[in-house]
Amino acid sequence: MTSNKSAIHEQGNGYFDEETSADVVNARMGDAADPRLKQILAVLTKHLHAAIKEIEPTQDEWFAAIKFLTDTGHMCNSWRQEFILLSDVLGVTMLVDSINHRRPSGATPNTILGPFYVEGSPHYRNGENICLDGKGEPALVRGRVVDVQGRPVAGATVEVWQTNNDGFYDVQQKGIQPENNLRGTFSSEVDGSYWFQTVKPRYYPIPYDGPVGKMLQAVDRHPNRAAHLHFIVSAPGYERVITHIFTPDCPYLAEDAVFGVKRDLVATFDKVDDQHLATEYGMPSPFLLVNWDFVLAPSAHAAG
Amino acid sequence: MTSNKSAIHEQGNGYFDEETSADVVNARMGDAADPRLKQILAVLTKHLHAAIKEIEPTQDEWFAAIKFLTDTGHMCNSWRQEFILLSDVLGVTMLVDSINHRRPSGATPNTILGPFYVEGSPHYRNGENICLDGKGEPALVRGRVVDVQGRPVAGATVEVWQTNNDGFYDVQQKGIQPENNLRGTFSSEVDGSYWFQTVKPRYYPIPYDGPVGKMLQAVDRHPNRAAHLHFIVSAPGYERVITHIFTPDCPYLAEDAVFGVKRDLVATFDKVDDQHLATEYGMPSPFLLVNWDFVLAPSAHAAG
Ligand SMILES: [Fe+2]
Ligand SMILES: [Fe+2]
Repeated sequence: MTSNKSAIHEQGNGYFDEETSADVVNARMGDAADPRLKQILAVLTKHLHAAIKEIEPTQDEWFAAIKFLTDTGHMCNSWRQEFILLSDVLGVTMLVDSINHRRPSGATPNTILGPFYVEGSPHYRNGENICLDGKGEPALVRGRVVDVQGRPVAGATVEVWQTNNDGFYDVQQKGIQPENNLRGTFSSEVDGSYWFQTVKPRYYPIPYDGPVGKMLQAVDRHPNRAAHLHFIVSAPGYERVITHIFTPDCPYLAEDAVFGVKRDLVATFDKVDDQHLATEYGMPSPFLLVNWDFVLAPSAHAAG
Repeated sequence: MTSNKSAIHEQGNGYFDEETSADVVNARMGDAADPRLKQILAVLTKHLHAAIKEIEPTQDEWFAAIKFLTDTGHMCNSWRQEFILLSDVLGVTMLVDSINHRRPSGATPNTILGPFYVEGSPHYRNGENICLDGKGEPALVRGRVVDVQGRPVAGATVEVWQTNNDGFYDVQQKGIQPENNLRGTFSSEVDGSYWFQTVKPRYYPIPYDGPVGKMLQAVDRHPNRAAHLHFIVSAPGYERVITHIFTPDCPYLAEDAVFGVKRDLVATFDKVDDQHLATEYGMPSPFLLVNWDFVLAPSAHAAG
């Protein structure tokens, strides 16, 4: 019995009280609990009670919420994570990502990793083509990996993955797409430069055949992610950046279902009809040109 | 596309923004959604984002929360509802119950129903004994069902259920306890009076072998409910009351695991050594005497 608990007992508190409900609940935690866990649960309880007082749910509404959470749990298995999906569509995943990746001005912002990353994708030399199914509008992505002072970062690892022209990742279409289609690992050159051939990505829906999809439909929201390329860029001494490049003309750009779009992550995909440039990069003509630099912040250790 | 969405689009908003994150999420809901559902989800999202901003969880903490919710969902089946248990131990069930059962001063307060209610328990005449296993301290519960003006309510249905002396309900120990042990339905007399024989109930733990039990342990809380009798009292023209009577000397009275205790629900269990009274009620001597009136509020329809 903690001194805190004893005091509560003596005051005749510890009994439920609508006004101070969250305090009554939080006072129940004991001294043997991990302080950080206590803090987290206390804040969640405080805001949860505040939400319920503002909503004043009926018993039926409360039970609908219980049922929704239960259905969401039952949808989860070894390959489907419906609670992460719920976190995604409520903007929570992006919020947690942002809180954990505040960077100096000018550094490339983080965005969410998503479920389609595969470690150890094939290594390519700069200039090679990651599109193995030959479908879609050819695009050249080129730029530099630099630090926040604009100095080149040589030997940075640039991992890229994206949907094919039908809006599917290779891992979603095993046996249909070539293995490792639109997925590869590059290294920046001595001057920080990297470049590769690909195709324009397409928007795609998050899985919407479960409780979260039903919820989106019920609140008149679509399930589509704005078209994007995924990147992880890393180099010793720099903070790893998990990020996207978005196409500027996707109909879902301002309505990404998981709120992954940040203003600084929208690229231009310029149609280039320049036979000289096409020949230089081994591209057909015309092609889409994407100029994109990655600006790395020093890692926490390096900064310290 | 709703006008709201269009406006957001034109402003170049709709992109994630840490500062206004909840607004960005909530603005995404469309006009075709049910207004009440929109309101509920908007309030929940607002408070959830506020909680996350206050907590600033690490990615690992966020994932631990995802895992906790997933485990909680996986614990739910046709007879075990771990999300209701979670709602119970966070005081949410009581809060929703209270919001939905605000009553005029003096009326018997509601408290939670719990999972052990069985419809259609055996009918008894006043004075009969609901304890069929002969274990525990004999108690006589007697009182009146009245309205808020103190006038008798005749023919009110008084349903009671409780644990036996070992802290288990009959439905938890089928084949061990007699069927319908410590469970029965009474009717108030013309003067509103009711009375029955029983035994003193015992405290008992809520199920703590799942994720919610682990959480309680991690925050240094026990899983015990303060000892109580359950009641549902109903009569035409009055609001049905789902309530408890608590014993005053339970070690968990101020620490009920689900916050079901309200000050006005704590009774006295007086040891009475009065052979005359014992004989009148057919009790052994001494016995515990519990005087308890139920005060019914007019039903919403009757009040209107
Ligand atoms: Fe993606
Ligand atoms: Fe109970």
